[in-house]
This record gives sequence, C-alpha cells and structure tokens, in this order.
Amino acid sequence: MERCAVAVDLGGTNIRTAAIGPDARIWIKHTEPTAAREGREAVLRRLVEAVQRIIADCRAAGAEPVGVGVGTPGVIQMQSGVVTEAPNLPDWQNVPLRAILAACLPLPVWIENDANAAALGEHWAGAGRGSEHLICLTLGTGVGGGIILDGKLWRGVDGSAGEIGHMSLDPRGARCGCGRTGCLEAYASATGIVRMAREAIDRGDPTRLQAFTPPSRGELTAARVYQAALEGDRVAQDIWQCMGSYLGIALANLVNLLNVELIVLSGGVTQAWELFIGTTEAEMRRRAFDIPARRARIARAMWGDEAGLLGAAALIWQGV
Amino acid sequence: MERCAVAVDLGGTNIRTAAIGPDARIWIKHTEPTAAREGREAVLRRLVEAVQRIIADCRAAGAEPVGVGVGTPGVIQMQSGVVTEAPNLPDWQNVPLRAILAACLPLPVWIENDANAAALGEHWAGAGRGSEHLICLTLGTGVGGGIILDGKLWRGVDGSAGEIGHMSLDPRGARCGCGRTGCLEAYASATGIVRMAREAIDRGDPTRLQAFTPPSRGELTAARVYQAALEGDRVAQDIWQCMGSYLGIALANLVNLLNVELIVLSGGVTQAWELFIGTTEAEMRRRAFDIPARRARIARAMWGDEAGLLGAAALIWQGV
Repeated sequence: MERCAVAVDLGGTNIRTAAIGPDARIWIKHTEPTAAREGREAVLRRLVEAVQRIIADCRAAGAEPVGVGVGTPGVIQMQSGVVTEAPNLPDWQNVPLRAILAACLPLPVWIENDANAAALGEHWAGAGRGSEHLICLTLGTGVGGGIILDGKLWRGVDGSAGEIGHMSLDPRGARCGCGRTGCLEAYASATGIVRMAREAIDRGDPTRLQAFTPPSRGELTAARVYQAALEGDRVAQDIWQCMGSYLGIALANLVNLLNVELIVLSGGVTQAWELFIGTTEAEMRRRAFDIPARRARIARAMWGDEAGLLGAAALIWQGV
Repeated sequence: MERCAVAVDLGGTNIRTAAIGPDARIWIKHTEPTAAREGREAVLRRLVEAVQRIIADCRAAGAEPVGVGVGTPGVIQMQSGVVTEAPNLPDWQNVPLRAILAACLPLPVWIENDANAAALGEHWAGAGRGSEHLICLTLGTGVGGGIILDGKLWRGVDGSAGEIGHMSLDPRGARCGCGRTGCLEAYASATGIVRMAREAIDRGDPTRLQAFTPPSRGELTAARVYQAALEGDRVAQDIWQCMGSYLGIALANLVNLLNVELIVLSGGVTQAWELFIGTTEAEMRRRAFDIPARRARIARAMWGDEAGLLGAAALIWQGV
C-alpha cells in the first residue's frame, strides 16, 4: 500500500488539506473557508473534520496516511506545540494545537508556522531544492519569512524567528498594519501596494487608478495596480518600483547578515515579478557587499499557494 | 607541562598576541604596531615574528603551546584559509593567511574574522557564557558583528555573514564610510558619533563642542563627545540618543529575524553605555515583536579589547 502525508494549510481565509506522497506529488486536495470570525472552537472543529475527511479519502483510494503536518499562522512554541499568538486568527492565544489535533486524530501530528512551512515546501520540492542555506519571503496580504540554514529551519529560541515582514527600513516611513513605521510589509505586501495607490489617488496623481475614488475605493487591489502598470500607467509603475526598491534594501540586509545562497520570493504579489525584480536586484547589489550579493541568487517560488501544503508534508517526510 | 593556546588579534593598528590557557586565563600578552602602511609583506613578517616570540616565551615559562588562533579583519574563505578582502589592511586581497602561517610556524593554525572572534571570545569566556544563541556587536571605529546559533558561529556560505554594521536603516540617512547611506555604522560607531558632532558644530548648535572648529577639528573624538554629554552638554547628549535609537532599530530587526536570547555589545563606544542604552532598549522593544523582544537580553561585553584574543584561543580550545 502506498503511503501518504496529510498536509494542512490553516489560513486566515481558507483551510486547505491535501494528501501528498514522498515524491511531493499531490494526490488529493480540498479547500474550505476558515470562517475565523465564528471563533476558535468552530475553526478547530472544522479543521479536525477536514483532516478526518482527507484521511478517509486516502484510505478509500487505497493509500495509507502516515502523519498529519499542519502549517498555521502565528508563533509556535515548538516543544509544547502551542500556538502562542496568531494575529490573523482572532482569539487564538496559547492554543495547544498539536495536543488538540493529536487527541482527535489517529495519526502523529506535526505543526509549523505557515511562513516556515512555505520555506520548507520550496526547499523540499521547489525553487530551493539543492540549496542548504536560503531565505523564503512570502509576499501576500502581509510579508512572512522562513530561514533555512544548513538545511534546517532556523526557528529561534521561541519559534518566532523569520519575522522579516517587520524589518524596519525607514524610521520615518509609511505606517504599517502592525502600528509601527517603515516596515518592509508596508511596501512589499498587497496591502502596501494598495496603500501607495490610495496615496497617489489622494494626491491627485494623473493615473487611471483615479477610477477607484469613493464609492469604488474598496475595489482597489494590488492586482488592479499591477494591471494598470502593465498597461503603461506611469504612476502605477512607480508604485512597483518603490516596492521593488524597499524589497531590495531588505534583501541587502538579509544577505549581509546571513550570506545565504538563495532568496526565494513567493506569494501573490510576485505575479508582478517583471515590474519590480529589476529594481530589487539592483538595489540589493547596491546596498550589500560584493561577496554576499554575488552569492545570493533571487528565485521565484515554484509553488504558489501550495508551498505551505508541501512544507506541511515535508514535516512528515523529512521526519522533523 | 601545562598547555596553552597562542592567540593573535591582527588589527588595523596593533598586532596583539597572547598565551591563553584552557581556563581562559591570559598568561602572557604582547602588543606591537601593525604598521599596515608598510605593506602586506612587512605585516606578515611582523606577524610571524610576534607569534614565534610568544611561542618561545611560552616554552621558556615551561608551557607547551598547542596551536595558533588568529583573528583578522576581512572576509575569510574558511576551507582554504584565504582572506579574500580586508578593508582595514591596504593591499590585502586573496591572502592565503593560514597557509603562510602554517608554513612558517611549528603549530597548527586556525584563522577567523575578527568580529567573529570577538563573538566567540564572549561566548566562550565572557558575557555570552551559557547562551547558545547570541549576536555580538562590536561598536568601535566601525561596527562589526558575529552571530552564534546553536552554539556555533554562523559564517555564511562565503564566510561573510554577520555584516551588521552595514544594515541599511534609513534609505535617505547619513552617508557611511562604505559609500552607502543610512547604515548602522553611520550612527553607532565612533566615526558616526564624530560625524554627528561635526554636523552639530557646522549647524552652529549651542554646544561646548564648538571648541573643535578648525584648527582643532581633528581633535574631536567620540570620547570627547562622551565627556561633553556627561558634563551636561545637551547637544552631545542628543547625539548619544540618536546613536542609541538607530542601534535599537537594528537590534529590533535582529531579534525579529533570529529570535536569539542575547545581544552582547562590545567595543570602545560602549564606554558611553549609560548615555544610550535606555534609548536602545526602548527602541528595540517598540520596534520588535513582544516574544523576541522579551527573550533578548542586552548585555555589555565582559572583555573589552581582549574579546578577540579570547576568541582566537577559543578556536583552539573548542577544537574548531
């Protein structure tokens, strides 16, 4: 009987589950809404049911599930398997996630922070395959990071390492969702792109994004800023240049500090790749020293939304 | 017969040598000028002679030297023992330092970057004893860094990791000696302190440092800015606050990224400890997340100038 890992990506929006083989092949995949607003108990119940369903699916297909790997937002105390904080999931404080799942499920359970899981996924079966020292940045609604050194995740003393999204790059810079100023996330996330576009609109800059004044303001997304830039809108293009520039400063700081061989960029914002990557590379090489800048290759993630699921499977197949 | 390590700290100004026991006791210590301007060959010759002298001193004192550890400026290719770049030593490019010393000396030779050696020294026998995950920042003429994770130096792929002095903190900030703008070193080094004082003088700020207008301009040092602040000079005090604030931002970035348990601050600039550390701690806690900020203790180095020598000895006693 073939063996499979049950992989779970618990997100602020969706719970995704998959059965994944030791060769990183995804056999079965399900998605359902997290409905985080219904509260912690409801989310946990849905999570357990989703895993039970995919275990049943595996067995019906003649495969043997050997373990459950879960990527979750927040900071995880690794020894206890407790999620100490999870900003994207209201009322998640000190949730003993591993113990709860282990009590409800017939299989061993591993849990990992979602950005770390994405890094593991790309390292195991994506753009980071073959690299032992890499950093994976996920540029989505926010910016997350995972650091792999000597082939292993660097989690830090409390499991909170890799918080690259809130690297402070400009003490008098833009306000970030975290309340601080000048964080990378304020520029290199979808939220940051929308903020910069709104500021351009409010300044009256000549851009087709002016169509998104009230009452259409809520429809402005990073994807629309991308589309406008692609179609030649200079203001929109400048926004992506600004994003690319701050991202480049952050990468310079990272390679100066850790001298890794690879930076993997993932997440929805990387769809605008060609609009920012030239600026990012140039800024990184300008700000970093020659040796670490020459060493660090910047690569686009191979797996989009699925890196986290693959990383959750890697928890099992790499015996973490 | 007692055994000792021969430790060498090769600096831009002095070559220091010592005989150090396995208990970190310094038995003998010598200092002589590097005279870097005389060129690479002359420096290497003086270095070899200094080591031969201390080996002879050890033997005369009845001790058996077991190896030579050298801390050197620059980036070191660890496998080959080649110093690829050393900004503080003119015409040092691709110097096969380990091979040269090994050929001239009767003992095995280890070499390490000087900031890494200081981190090793504090970890082995100083403020970092008992901590397995720490970062050591040396605030001197420049700012250097060493990162210890899981009890081992993190050197990076090319041996250039730990370049914390050139972390970019303010894209439109002060010009740094490296030619870039807004680096930590532009604020938290002795050079940065003097630069800020000169700017205050040039602005005509009401400060006793106005005594250092030409022709006395060259006599302005970080120590004098420290002295003025101690004696109540508000402009000088503000300079130390500004230094402390940028240092705090850098520490916030470091603990968010690596979630270490300890930050050790060493180097001559830390003599002004009480003038900046409050600001530094406050800024770090304001900019970092709660969990890593609560975890990270900030400690003053136990060894001043001698941390590098102790680290060079640790190379031998820890069998690196």
